[in-house]
Amino acid sequence: MTSITSLGGGHGLFATLRAARQIADEVTAVVTVADDGGSSGRLRRELGQIPPGDLRMALAALSADTEKGDLWETTLQHRFGGSGALAGHAIGNLIIAGLTSVMGSEVAALDELARLLQIKGRVVPMSPIPLEIEAEVVGLEEDARVVRQVRGQVAVATTPGQVRRIRLIPEHPPAAPEAVEAIHNADLVTLGPGSWFTSVLPHLQVPGLVGALQETSATTAVVLNLVAEPGETAGFSAERHIHMLSQHASELKVDHIVIDNNTPLAPSEKNYLARAAQTLRAEVTFADVQELGEHDCLTGRHSPEKLSQALQTLL
Amino acid sequence: MTSITSLGGGHGLFATLRAARQIADEVTAVVTVADDGGSSGRLRRELGQIPPGDLRMALAALSADTEKGDLWETTLQHRFGGSGALAGHAIGNLIIAGLTSVMGSEVAALDELARLLQIKGRVVPMSPIPLEIEAEVVGLEEDARVVRQVRGQVAVATTPGQVRRIRLIPEHPPAAPEAVEAIHNADLVTLGPGSWFTSVLPHLQVPGLVGALQETSATTAVVLNLVAEPGETAGFSAERHIHMLSQHASELKVDHIVIDNNTPLAPSEKNYLARAAQTLRAEVTFADVQELGEHDCLTGRHSPEKLSQALQTLL
Repeated sequence: MTSITSLGGGHGLFATLRAARQIADEVTAVVTVADDGGSSGRLRRELGQIPPGDLRMALAALSADTEKGDLWETTLQHRFGGSGALAGHAIGNLIIAGLTSVMGSEVAALDELARLLQIKGRVVPMSPIPLEIEAEVVGLEEDARVVRQVRGQVAVATTPGQVRRIRLIPEHPPAAPEAVEAIHNADLVTLGPGSWFTSVLPHLQVPGLVGALQETSATTAVVLNLVAEPGETAGFSAERHIHMLSQHASELKVDHIVIDNNTPLAPSEKNYLARAAQTLRAEVTFADVQELGEHDCLTGRHSPEKLSQALQTLL
Repeated sequence: MTSITSLGGGHGLFATLRAARQIADEVTAVVTVADDGGSSGRLRRELGQIPPGDLRMALAALSADTEKGDLWETTLQHRFGGSGALAGHAIGNLIIAGLTSVMGSEVAALDELARLLQIKGRVVPMSPIPLEIEAEVVGLEEDARVVRQVRGQVAVATTPGQVRRIRLIPEHPPAAPEAVEAIHNADLVTLGPGSWFTSVLPHLQVPGLVGALQETSATTAVVLNLVAEPGETAGFSAERHIHMLSQHASELKVDHIVIDNNTPLAPSEKNYLARAAQTLRAEVTFADVQELGEHDCLTGRHSPEKLSQALQTLL
């Protein structure tokens, strides 16, 4: 009985869950709830609920491996077209929002949808309340050292400035008890890959989750992004990604940092990485985790199969 | 193996389906698709689909008789609150519309939802295309004989004038093959109760359905309304309801007309009813089908239990 708990959001979490489901009997997704854009943002503002988009994508990643499972994965992810009031809303977002209205709890609604759609795992929000991201950003003024506060997930993800650090509003939000429990009970806990400032670091601003990461007897692994994200982390090195983690949770201890080995590194670069990893008391684990395209070109996407093999070796 | 096919729409069909499911192994709802009001009307205009409201209500009526069945019945029927873009939309309408967008067919979407929610039966639209209702209405001008055309389900249901007859736009629309098949294969086919002009008579303007009603070897029964509907049929006698049927489908033949016996009728009134029934070659069947409230007061609602007993005797 192997159990994996994966923290993240968006497409990065989607890839990790696709990998985790291949090697674990129990998969729990712990999902950021700070989105304020698109369909999620509209639902959040209209209904005052947790934004459902990242939760929906995690459900889709864990959909049953059957013809009906594929149909419902497509349906959850499908967005209404046209130019009317529904245009752009993902159907899964509306179902999560509606069931939450009826059941009075996102966790109960997600569990019921998981049961109904025979989802292979559990999806829980990282916090039971909707959160906002606020970032300290430099490079927005003529004097590049001036720090400006930028608020909102979309604004942070698209600011032309450089993000220094993020915090959540409200600060120190409660962790969802189900998320804490899943971190405690796992054999392996993963954090990342994903949009570093808006999908990964938010987890480290929830004290209950950081506490659980310290206390769990599970193996813990950070999966680094394959490429820097335009807007969010353009120009950031792998070390800088790692430093960001310890900057946002100084007590954080991680067992492994998984880095793709498809891009050759000079010995000095490997040294930098190992030193950065020491701030988290982590070991750097190089593994082939990248999907290759035609002529073996790098795609910048994690391969679920390769990532699952890499995670398997950590177990 | 008993099979009942029920034609109608709205709350009237809901009551019939609740009754039919108690005595039949197979229940098929054949549902009007001419609604243009509220959530259904908005979806129809925005997505160009069949209005889902009456279909949703039929699914809810057939929901599984379990705790989860009750939850999903509530969820399908639940309407978003607030004052935003989603306000007033029934969640079930959005699920039907979304699944239809993905699967490309209302019939396929309804069958999949029925499978997923363990619905006790099948729900099919009367026609595969969205329809409009147009009515000939008198009493709108100073000269009360002047006939005006009133178009749209909401307009017809609420006109202060008196509706003479309705027709569908487009005229002579195709019947859904699944509806025709269900009429042929049933042991008992019911039509009504419900809003006479907007939920019952539209079925008789679909040639394929009228043809199937003529040809089927099933017992056929019209279930009359308990009370005249304000707006639609205010002041209409039971005979007039019956005459409306033959006026809208002159060839129509029905085996039984089920009339509640909780309101005592004079012998002359019974004669009128029997004569009206003859236009459909039908027998009048009096039965106790009304739900009684405190102190045995009449509620104007069909009791699913009593109606199921009445239908059982026709089988």
